[in-house]
Amino acid sequence: MIELYTWTTPNGEKPVIMLEECGLEYGLHMTDISTGLQKKPDFLAMNPNGRIPALVDRTENGGEMRVFESGSILVYLAEKTGQFLPTAQPHRAETFSWTFFQVGGTGPMIGQLHHFKSYAPEKIPYAIERYENETRRLLGVLESRLSDFEWLAGPYGIADMINWSWARSGLDGVDGRSDFPALAAWVDRIAAREPVKRALGRMKAAKEAASG
Amino acid sequence: MIELYTWTTPNGEKPVIMLEECGLEYGLHMTDISTGLQKKPDFLAMNPNGRIPALVDRTENGGEMRVFESGSILVYLAEKTGQFLPTAQPHRAETFSWTFFQVGGTGPMIGQLHHFKSYAPEKIPYAIERYENETRRLLGVLESRLSDFEWLAGPYGIADMINWSWARSGLDGVDGRSDFPALAAWVDRIAAREPVKRALGRMKAAKEAASG
Repeated sequence: MIELYTWTTPNGEKPVIMLEECGLEYGLHMTDISTGLQKKPDFLAMNPNGRIPALVDRTENGGEMRVFESGSILVYLAEKTGQFLPTAQPHRAETFSWTFFQVGGTGPMIGQLHHFKSYAPEKIPYAIERYENETRRLLGVLESRLSDFEWLAGPYGIADMINWSWARSGLDGVDGRSDFPALAAWVDRIAAREPVKRALGRMKAAKEAASG
Repeated sequence: MIELYTWTTPNGEKPVIMLEECGLEYGLHMTDISTGLQKKPDFLAMNPNGRIPALVDRTENGGEMRVFESGSILVYLAEKTGQFLPTAQPHRAETFSWTFFQVGGTGPMIGQLHHFKSYAPEKIPYAIERYENETRRLLGVLESRLSDFEWLAGPYGIADMINWSWARSGLDGVDGRSDFPALAAWVDRIAAREPVKRALGRMKAAKEAASG
């Protein structure tokens, strides 16, 4: 049985969407990161980096393994189920390329944008401008790709799922839907998928139950 | 034949090290990023993100495919050669987890540290402290792991190769070798490997030849 420890953030949404897309059963454990639960020893045993999401897969014969980092979790679930990660080239390499593009690019850079715009105790114009510019540049890379292709890397797959939550967050952060229309349309196409709606709905309900 | 377009940066070193570790033949094309070559149409066709490294693999029957992002290139070469990426669990999942940890963590955060310490036109204490703290936190995660294990994810593999150049850069950035002794010893173990020495030597020679 798969147990997922996560929270309602862009990185935290990705594995829930993948689990719903794959049709897997799983336990959903909402880990309120504002309380520091993700820094406790129990959590660090699952993810030594002390961040959500983290996954533990327990097999019937008592085996147990951990998977941490959203990118690693999506690859693990794709290989476990044989879905959403092409085995043939060039789609396989394109899938990994666009997946790592998200993890090394939009995730950390849009994260810094939100930090300096909304959370830092002082407003630092240089930093805000730096991360707005980089966010717009990265959204432009996705816009260009999605002007020519329906999905990022061949068929709909983990490259789309992993890029979705941060692209949506980036469009919000720079008020960019009209500047990046192909990207905005792709965000909406994914948001309309039943497994994606189920994932977000299940997270919302679990968060409310946990805080109630 | 594999053609690699890269430069002497932490991200640029990774695929050269992997190519040498795998014993593959390849063309090494030094792409001086200070001249903006990586933003030209020829380069963008290989990597739409306009950054080094980028790889093109041309097959004997005239086929050609691109792979971009250092993480994607290492996975591609590992699968092409059947080396340095375990097929069995839990080492396979640990390999992907520590690989994505680098791409989403040490790479962008140590990159921001260097930017605010050395390249930004103004010294912004808040930003420098933010990225020093995060660099030290991330190096501490590696230190803890490498206090218990010789390599990050089972046998020496892509998780080690991809983490190496940024860990070295991070130790330099915070003057941290004495604070993170297990990590420093692992950095030195990898630096002493013959394929790693060949990779760095070949890059240095190619850079000098290109600028000469």
